[in-house]
Amino acid sequence: MIIDCHGHYTTAPRALQAYRDAQVAGLENPTHPQTKGVVAITDDEIRESLENAQLKFQRERGTDVTIFSPRASAMAHHVGDRTTSLHWSQHCNDLIARVCALYPKNFVGVCQLPQSPGAPPDSCIGELERCVNELGFIGCNLNPDPSGGHWTAPPLTDRWWYPLYEKMVELDVPAMVHVSSSCNPNFHATGAHYINADTTAFMQFLTADLFVDFPTLRFVIPHGGGAVPYHWGRYRGLAQDMKRPPPGDLMRNNVFFDTCVYHRPGIELLVSVVPSDNILFGSEMVGAVRGIDAETGQYFDDTKRYIDALTSIGAAEKRKIFEGNARKVYPRIAKAIA
Amino acid sequence: MIIDCHGHYTTAPRALQAYRDAQVAGLENPTHPQTKGVVAITDDEIRESLENAQLKFQRERGTDVTIFSPRASAMAHHVGDRTTSLHWSQHCNDLIARVCALYPKNFVGVCQLPQSPGAPPDSCIGELERCVNELGFIGCNLNPDPSGGHWTAPPLTDRWWYPLYEKMVELDVPAMVHVSSSCNPNFHATGAHYINADTTAFMQFLTADLFVDFPTLRFVIPHGGGAVPYHWGRYRGLAQDMKRPPPGDLMRNNVFFDTCVYHRPGIELLVSVVPSDNILFGSEMVGAVRGIDAETGQYFDDTKRYIDALTSIGAAEKRKIFEGNARKVYPRIAKAIA
Repeated sequence: MIIDCHGHYTTAPRALQAYRDAQVAGLENPTHPQTKGVVAITDDEIRESLENAQLKFQRERGTDVTIFSPRASAMAHHVGDRTTSLHWSQHCNDLIARVCALYPKNFVGVCQLPQSPGAPPDSCIGELERCVNELGFIGCNLNPDPSGGHWTAPPLTDRWWYPLYEKMVELDVPAMVHVSSSCNPNFHATGAHYINADTTAFMQFLTADLFVDFPTLRFVIPHGGGAVPYHWGRYRGLAQDMKRPPPGDLMRNNVFFDTCVYHRPGIELLVSVVPSDNILFGSEMVGAVRGIDAETGQYFDDTKRYIDALTSIGAAEKRKIFEGNARKVYPRIAKAIA
Repeated sequence: MIIDCHGHYTTAPRALQAYRDAQVAGLENPTHPQTKGVVAITDDEIRESLENAQLKFQRERGTDVTIFSPRASAMAHHVGDRTTSLHWSQHCNDLIARVCALYPKNFVGVCQLPQSPGAPPDSCIGELERCVNELGFIGCNLNPDPSGGHWTAPPLTDRWWYPLYEKMVELDVPAMVHVSSSCNPNFHATGAHYINADTTAFMQFLTADLFVDFPTLRFVIPHGGGAVPYHWGRYRGLAQDMKRPPPGDLMRNNVFFDTCVYHRPGIELLVSVVPSDNILFGSEMVGAVRGIDAETGQYFDDTKRYIDALTSIGAAEKRKIFEGNARKVYPRIAKAIA
């Protein structure tokens, strides 16, 4: 079985964006009470949005199941307040639940959290519990920068986040560290903000004792771990200079990278430095990069091809990357795809 | 000849930091007028600070000349105001000039700019001209985030920066894009902020027409180009989706990466995707990572070893990386080391 740990519902029917546009427009009048409202989407519209996109690519590329969450760039936690974020997150998560109900063999849900700048993370616990206990989701996406590029929240290793981590540990669900769109003109979302956040989170983990406090807490850092594998020597050296655990030891049971790296040399580097126990297959499909690489004639984000082509690791390691590690990091997946 | 394009005076005599400490302490009393003051350092102290550090490593590693600038993490443009920054920058630059005068075969100067949050970049022109025309410097370090991790300045492609670029073009000097320390607790300086800034700058360049407006403007993005080579497929794909020039075309005459990547797999990746015309040898020595890698028994930042060991490129390409490209990007070096 091949599990893609990183897919977002980037192709959702238009009614979802129409809801969001109306919600955001409503914020212009602060005396107007925020109401949750309705997202009117039919099952047929959901089927249509997936059949020629994620499902088609699953079939063509030979992957089985996608760990699926709302569109990351649309989370936009910086818009409005925590009520805005809660309404929007619940609608997005409900839509993912409908996708999973329609295609239980193809998709397993991961939720967007109703984060909001300055709002304490325990305000997300209710929605996390709802998604895991009632909708059958197996993890969450955690935004380390709800401000959207201004980085005003405490580091992920700050005790400020601990109430949420306690709940994640209790529910036995991991978080993918995933920022959303950037409202800072310095940061292109998918070309800078995403990758920067990955690198930033790793360095936060490396310099604190978070996993001493939470030995079973698990994070997936997407996009191949940001810049970390390319600078693996730098991180090994910094850790050594600071008398911190080597990066490989830090990661062991707690930090995992996906394979959303869109060329073969990058994937080769990833598997050459990062332990194969800490790599999860992911493609971000349909996501940041949608084109076909003229050099290969294949989609940039068809990351399975790069792994299939690797000769530096064997079949057992590939099975871990394609399936075993995802089952370990997201243990609730076993029941979801039983 | 082997030219190291990236060295900072991280080992400066203590009197420099003592000056800075007093300067910063003086800011606590805002009614106290800022005075430039004196940094009292003898030539012998300068010699001593280099003989067992940068000079020793040059000899041991077989490099010839280092393009040398003030300590990047100490620029701290976010401290005080533009007067603070000007006094501090002038002292730091003067010290570099003394290093170059004492060891004219070993060091060529690059200046720190007196940037300050909100201060327009043309306020740096005077110091740039002084350093180039009077001190014989061949380039500058440009901080894309003078706020120190809050990213409040416009992107490097904004016309806000153009007056400085006009002067750089007139003087025929490049800038290394280099942030300083971070006062945002999210960003570890050398482990996150530096690398993020590199990635951020590249994506800014990729999404704007800066080099149409300034065909001869040149930037060195240090630390191996941040995350860019590892995600080369992502950048190629994003550029294609956005109908922007491919990254290799963007870089051609304008954007260059150094080799401050502290392990061989990273260097191998760098040269496998980035044109060898756009790579400059650099080590950041003595810099972010100072230890010896137990796996190799060599210093992490002895990047010359990784390049020497490469078999994927030939002698001609190595000569470009070690010397030719630096002469092209920093044309004033010819006179400085004649």
